[in-house]
This record gives sequence, C-alpha cells and structure tokens, in this order.
Amino acid sequence: MKQKLLFTLMVTFLISCGGKQDDEQKTQLTPVEEQTLYDRAKQLFGALPDKMPGSENDTEALIELGKKLYFETKLSVNNTQSCNTCHDITNGMAGVDNKPLSPGAIEGKIGTRNSPTVFNAGFQFAQFWDGRSPDLVEQAKGPILNPLEMAMPDEKTVEKTIAAIDEYKEMFNKAFPNVKKPITFHNIAVAIAAFERTLVSKSRFDDYVNGNRDALTVQEKKGMKSFIDNNCIMCHTGPLLGGSLYQKMGLINPYENTEDLGRYEVTKLESDKYMFKVAMLRNVALTHPYFHDGKVEKLEDAVKKMAWLNLGKELPDNEVADIVAFLNSLTDKNLENRKQAKK
Amino acid sequence: MKQKLLFTLMVTFLISCGGKQDDEQKTQLTPVEEQTLYDRAKQLFGALPDKMPGSENDTEALIELGKKLYFETKLSVNNTQSCNTCHDITNGMAGVDNKPLSPGAIEGKIGTRNSPTVFNAGFQFAQFWDGRSPDLVEQAKGPILNPLEMAMPDEKTVEKTIAAIDEYKEMFNKAFPNVKKPITFHNIAVAIAAFERTLVSKSRFDDYVNGNRDALTVQEKKGMKSFIDNNCIMCHTGPLLGGSLYQKMGLINPYENTEDLGRYEVTKLESDKYMFKVAMLRNVALTHPYFHDGKVEKLEDAVKKMAWLNLGKELPDNEVADIVAFLNSLTDKNLENRKQAKK
Repeated sequence: MKQKLLFTLMVTFLISCGGKQDDEQKTQLTPVEEQTLYDRAKQLFGALPDKMPGSENDTEALIELGKKLYFETKLSVNNTQSCNTCHDITNGMAGVDNKPLSPGAIEGKIGTRNSPTVFNAGFQFAQFWDGRSPDLVEQAKGPILNPLEMAMPDEKTVEKTIAAIDEYKEMFNKAFPNVKKPITFHNIAVAIAAFERTLVSKSRFDDYVNGNRDALTVQEKKGMKSFIDNNCIMCHTGPLLGGSLYQKMGLINPYENTEDLGRYEVTKLESDKYMFKVAMLRNVALTHPYFHDGKVEKLEDAVKKMAWLNLGKELPDNEVADIVAFLNSLTDKNLENRKQAKK
Repeated sequence: MKQKLLFTLMVTFLISCGGKQDDEQKTQLTPVEEQTLYDRAKQLFGALPDKMPGSENDTEALIELGKKLYFETKLSVNNTQSCNTCHDITNGMAGVDNKPLSPGAIEGKIGTRNSPTVFNAGFQFAQFWDGRSPDLVEQAKGPILNPLEMAMPDEKTVEKTIAAIDEYKEMFNKAFPNVKKPITFHNIAVAIAAFERTLVSKSRFDDYVNGNRDALTVQEKKGMKSFIDNNCIMCHTGPLLGGSLYQKMGLINPYENTEDLGRYEVTKLESDKYMFKVAMLRNVALTHPYFHDGKVEKLEDAVKKMAWLNLGKELPDNEVADIVAFLNSLTDKNLENRKQAKK
C-alpha cells in the first residue's frame, strides 16, 4: 500500500515537473501546417450555408406562425409542453434540455432517446436518431402524438385545439393564402418546420473556414488537426461535422448499452443493428449529455469513448483536451459567452 | 456428387426463371426517392470544380514545359520511361498502366504499389498511397529518383540531363522568367505539377450533380443509393469519392496481404499500420487492377471485397452490379466510349 502511494506521488511529481503538455499547447503551427490544415478544413467541412434547404419558399407569415406554434403548450395533452420544452432555444440554451432523456407531458412518462438540438437540424440528411423522418415537417409531427412526449391523442384533436384559438385563424390564413381550410395537422408541422429553418447557428469555425485564420486559437487548430488525423472525420464530415450518414455505435469495440437497436427498429435489417445517425457536432459543447442514450455527461469523456468505440483508439489526454477545445469553437457565437454548462 | 449437380441445376433454373433482378433494375425510383438521392449526392459528393487548387498561378509556358517533361523519357536512367509510362494519359488510357505493379526502368525492378491515376490527382489531400507527399510537386520528384522506377542516380544528374537539351533552355526561361538558373530539380517537378493540374477529368456524374437528372440511368442511380445506404460514403466522400482521408485496409475484417504496412512506413505509429489513403473512385472502372497491391482484377470483386473488409457486409450480387454501374458513371466522358478494359 505504501509502495503504491509512493509510486503515485512519483508519477504526480514527474507529470507536474514535465510541463511538456503546456509547452506543446502553446507551440504555434508552422505556416505550412497552418495552410494544410486550412485547406483540409475547407475540403472536409466547409462553412455552413446562410440558408437552410427549403427556406427559399418560407414567407414571413409562415415563419411567424411556426414560431408561435413552436412555443405552443396547447400542442401537448395537458398544456404543459411545447416543442421548446425539450428543444429549448431561450435563455442561452442550445436547442436542448440538457437532460439524458426528456420527461413527457404525462407524469412518469419519459422519452427513450436523448433530445437532439434543433439548431441547424434542417441541414441534416434525416431527422431523429434513427433517421425515421426524412425532413423537419415529418419530424415535427412525431413528438406531438408520441405518448411519451406531448401525448396528444390524434391529429384531429390537435387540429381542433389549434382551430379553437382565435389568433391562429388569421395567422393560418396569412401563412397559407388561398387554402380553404388551412388549419391541418400537416400544416401545423409545415409552419413549425419553416420556423426551424431559421435556426441557423454559426460559429467562429465558420469565420475560420471563410478565411479569417485568426478566428481559432492555436489549441483549437491543433484540436482540429487531431480530429482530422485521428479519423473522426470518417463520420463527422461536412459543414455540420455529422448529420450526413448512419454509423454503428461501437464499430470497432462494442457499446455497453445494447438495449437500443437504433435504425434496426425502422428497417428491421440485421445490418442496421446499433446504427444511429452520426450526431452533428455543431454546438456540441452545450448539448450535453451525450450519445443517443444521454449516458455520458462530459464532452471529454464523450470524445474518449467515441475514439475507443468507433476508431479503436485510446486517445492521450492532451489530444482529448485539444479536440474538446476545437469542438468548443463550433458553438454558436451568440451562445459562446454562456458558461459551459455543468461539468 | 449427382445430388450436388442436381441441386446446382435446380438453383440455376430458379435463378433464370425468377427474373426478379431484371425487373428491379428496370423499376424507376419514385419522385421523392429521386429528390432525396439528388439532395444527398449534392451534400455528400458535389461536382468536381473546374480548376485544380494552385492552378490559378500556372502560366501557359509553365504548363507547356510540364507537358513536355511529363512525356520525357530522358528523366529515366536509360531513357525508357517517362511519367506517362505508368500514368498513361494517351490512347484512351485513364492515367494508369493497368498493371498490378509497374516495372521500373531497370530490367527486373518492379514497384511495390499499384500506380494510381494522374487524372484529378491534384484534388486529393495528399499524394501516394501512404500520403508521404503533400502535393503534386513533391510527388513528381519521387519516381524520378526511385531505383524501382525511373532510377535516376541523383538530382544533379537530372538537372544536367535536362539542361543538355537545347529546347528546354528556352522553355524554362519562359516558364520561370527572371530566374537566373531555372533548370533545377525542384522546377522540373513544379512544371510537371502545373501540367498535371490541367488533368481535370469530369463525368456524367458531374452533369447529374450540376442539375441534369437524366445524366444517370436508373441502375446508376440505384447503385448510388446502394453506395450511400451501405455506407461506402464513410470513406469515399467529397467530389472525388475518396482522396480525402486515410483508412485501414481491413477495418472490420483483416486483409490477407499483410506485407505492406501502409502509412506506418511513413509515421512509424502503431495506429497507422495498414492505413492507406482512401482511393478516389473517379475513373475507377478504367483503373483496374485494384487496391494498393493491384491484387484484384475486376471491379465487382473490388466492391465485394471492400464491403467485406471495411464494412463487414456481404453484398448481394444485384447490389454489387448496381454499384458497379454507378461507378461506371464516374468515368471521364472522353474515355467513356473506350471499351471497359479486360475483365
């Protein structure tokens, strides 16, 4: 026991004396490394577009209606929940509720997967962790009727509830001109989706990719280099750094939570077991806890774990720290001054 | 034995009677499937740019010089080989020699890895199978001095050889104005790279991504869908469908040829064992044989094998056929009428 203590003390001493990690973090990249990194960032990721696909047809009236509906608690069975309850975009929240799984409107009910952020969601190739909805419109319909979420009994009840509110009549008429009966379940989702298409969330990383090389710190750039060199880019590519393909959770080493079969639940294909949509990493520093089951609280642990599960790598702590620094540069500029939430 | 024969005959009979595969291939995609596929193709791949990075500074004089040097057999020790010998761009060749490994200038010598195509090479993030050169200039220097390739003894000899040819003096002066002694080993590579940057090779796939939905056949589109849905896009992404990251050859199931350690030879990192640059798939139908060791002759076998090695999937024959059809749509339009080389 004494020997173990002595050893621990020695190791601690050696680590504190070394200071190598600190020095490395301060080391500037060479001009050639800078240029190479910049070229690859442009090639692999690119900046986020200003507009979301489909937004070209969104009118102000439609967006305004969608916004009201997004915050509408009457869309839940007991008037307790709106879209914003689980995908909170107010008070500096990053479009999530920061809970592992989200409680539903009915007491005691709880969702089965972590609520993903609504920011930039419409840039993704599919919606939900298992991609079961192709777009924001179909996505918006899900939670309203899901008994574990907003728990409305059926589409007709939703339509009646909204139609009974005077204010909506005029708004729907403006948003859907020349439509005889505009208040339909589908149109509610269409409007919500239009509002969600305005939730484009840009970060310092976009400034960097657009040419401002000083938008990222040295450590953030080194983290991006680690992120690229360690092949995180295999799945986390494109301007969202994710949201463009499905991947097996535990590609190399199996994930311990084997309950959720992922996309298999949609397709019933054996090859889709444990496949999930690759999470986009935009705003990831603020959207803890992590993974489809929300089982990992800290971003550094999520990075370490993913490297082990899907790349078969045990990343050293300094690389993890660099990658986490890089991931922080993907935070919305308006949210960046918010303190990184509970660690 | 008789029983086995009977069984084989029965299976053959059932397959020929079925005709299901043929019907499937003729089935049109629904308008929604068409749109989804198109959106994903744009997002995941995108069209090839018209110009290669760095080409904005290439003058006509530099390109002309580079072209002459590209075909210059005096760059090999016994005047037998030029760049074009292994990366043949004449007579409908797709920038390769279609040999598993390439014989060198010195009889009996042979290269250690399959010669990759020069078409579109400058769009890649690094050069050589192991990425040991960052760009075309550094790449061009390699084979000239490699004893297994053009086998020139040293840089000075190369410079003297070229300087002794009158025609080059004027060409170098034009290509490198205001440079006192322009004929250097480095400048030879600079000129060759400038010529190679003109070798942008576009295909019907680019027409499709640029908006001509009819540029691909139904089977090619279905093949693209299989290519995406089976996660080939995990590595084969971007406008080259590859050439943007390293990946382990045998990510899920080990590759049987364990001799070549790939990028490990460059970095000596354990994690780089069997890592190779992901091959771009532009012109892949014409660049057989396949893989870094050129061990696979047919494209369908390469598709099957990669699916097994890196995705852990046994693809059914009809999906392989569709994917191969899609890969054929990546062939340079000028080369497309060339008969697909020996099967």
